[in-house]
Amino acid sequence: MYKPNLNNVRVVLSHTTHPGNIGAAARAMKTMGLKHLCLINPSRFPDPQATAMATGADDILQNAVLCSTIDEALQGVVLTVGMTARMRDISNEVASPWDAMPKVLQEATMHSVALLFGTEMSGLTNEEASRAQLLVNIPANPEFSSLNLASAVQVIAYELAAAAQVFQPTAKALQPATHEQVEGLMEHLEKTLYEIGFFTTQNPERMMQRLRRLYARARLEPDEINILRGILSLTTEYNGRLKARYQQEYDV
Amino acid sequence: MYKPNLNNVRVVLSHTTHPGNIGAAARAMKTMGLKHLCLINPSRFPDPQATAMATGADDILQNAVLCSTIDEALQGVVLTVGMTARMRDISNEVASPWDAMPKVLQEATMHSVALLFGTEMSGLTNEEASRAQLLVNIPANPEFSSLNLASAVQVIAYELAAAAQVFQPTAKALQPATHEQVEGLMEHLEKTLYEIGFFTTQNPERMMQRLRRLYARARLEPDEINILRGILSLTTEYNGRLKARYQQEYDV
Repeated sequence: MYKPNLNNVRVVLSHTTHPGNIGAAARAMKTMGLKHLCLINPSRFPDPQATAMATGADDILQNAVLCSTIDEALQGVVLTVGMTARMRDISNEVASPWDAMPKVLQEATMHSVALLFGTEMSGLTNEEASRAQLLVNIPANPEFSSLNLASAVQVIAYELAAAAQVFQPTAKALQPATHEQVEGLMEHLEKTLYEIGFFTTQNPERMMQRLRRLYARARLEPDEINILRGILSLTTEYNGRLKARYQQEYDV
Repeated sequence: MYKPNLNNVRVVLSHTTHPGNIGAAARAMKTMGLKHLCLINPSRFPDPQATAMATGADDILQNAVLCSTIDEALQGVVLTVGMTARMRDISNEVASPWDAMPKVLQEATMHSVALLFGTEMSGLTNEEASRAQLLVNIPANPEFSSLNLASAVQVIAYELAAAAQVFQPTAKALQPATHEQVEGLMEHLEKTLYEIGFFTTQNPERMMQRLRRLYARARLEPDEINILRGILSLTTEYNGRLKARYQQEYDV
């Protein structure tokens, strides 16, 4: 019924330093049938080095989308897979490529998916990682785990193409929310938590990361987001009334 | 009992044109725990570009073995896996990386294995491919299948490391012959076939390739090689006697 659709998969490279890596990544993508490249604030692009390293994948560079923020790059995406070279302090779920890629294919039958790669030196920032519903680690030599960026793209694209060869879509009722819908909820939640004074006793950044993780695991549906935002709206409405009442009492 | 031993796996790069690819291949190897690199007549090595691209895998470049022939590179090897980007005219068995790498690990529990990569532009020559017991194709976009050499090394090394994580050695009585033992037989066989006049009606090169393929499939044991060479020795001895007899008759 639903076939894996690699056209629904975009590769997002964040703050890439070396233009040669962008070209090599484009070539790696194309060898495995991936087309859509999205670049968040690359140091230099377009660049002759990128073109030289693409060798035949120029079309991918020409169609690459330049973005200035991660949220722009993830527009319309329902599943973001972030690549990480290390296990993070906050214990996120970290999957192997072979466990993760069938999930990517499953979502890509109907929805947009992003494969998110951080900058060469330090990988994804915590903010970027927090946008991912799934973190993937390419298992590597513990004494020398630094894959070149384009090599990491090649391995992930290869694993995706390999998984596509044996892919069997599962029936699925879940209608996942888009990146914007989730971000809308997160913003609403953070604002609400400030408003009700929750952050006076908690580290806001750390707490928001924990909440993000919780909701990432849940893979929210749009209806559920509406429900949660309804609750948040009422929370502040109540809070507003309470404030007004205190004000009244104080006035009296 | 037997654990996979990546120390028994050597990567052989034949006639590499760009030194940068040698360095990038060394880096790719090291990320996946491979150490032994063997270079057959590289265009330029050592070279600053190779060192630059190795970034931290200099030890692999420093310990790389330079060879002038494929037979030198495959010394002591019992299983050679040749990488091919195309299906060959002579229908060799071509496996996927995920089917082939468990076999590599199985042999590598006790014996030396070679992963053989051809030159950038055209891959393995027919002669090189004929030295492999197993050909492997990395499945790729049919419209753009040209993986960069270092990317191909990365994918194969990754697949090997991934297979090692779930590797279960099988009990195995087979004691495979080394590359030299097989080559000794092939040389003996070719010489014998010339001597008995077999090649007067056959294309020698093509026939030897077919025979190589047959024996590659059989995965000969040293004892079997001795038996076959014994037969060949008798063949020519008989032939020699027959000749002598004809000569005698002619003389009479």
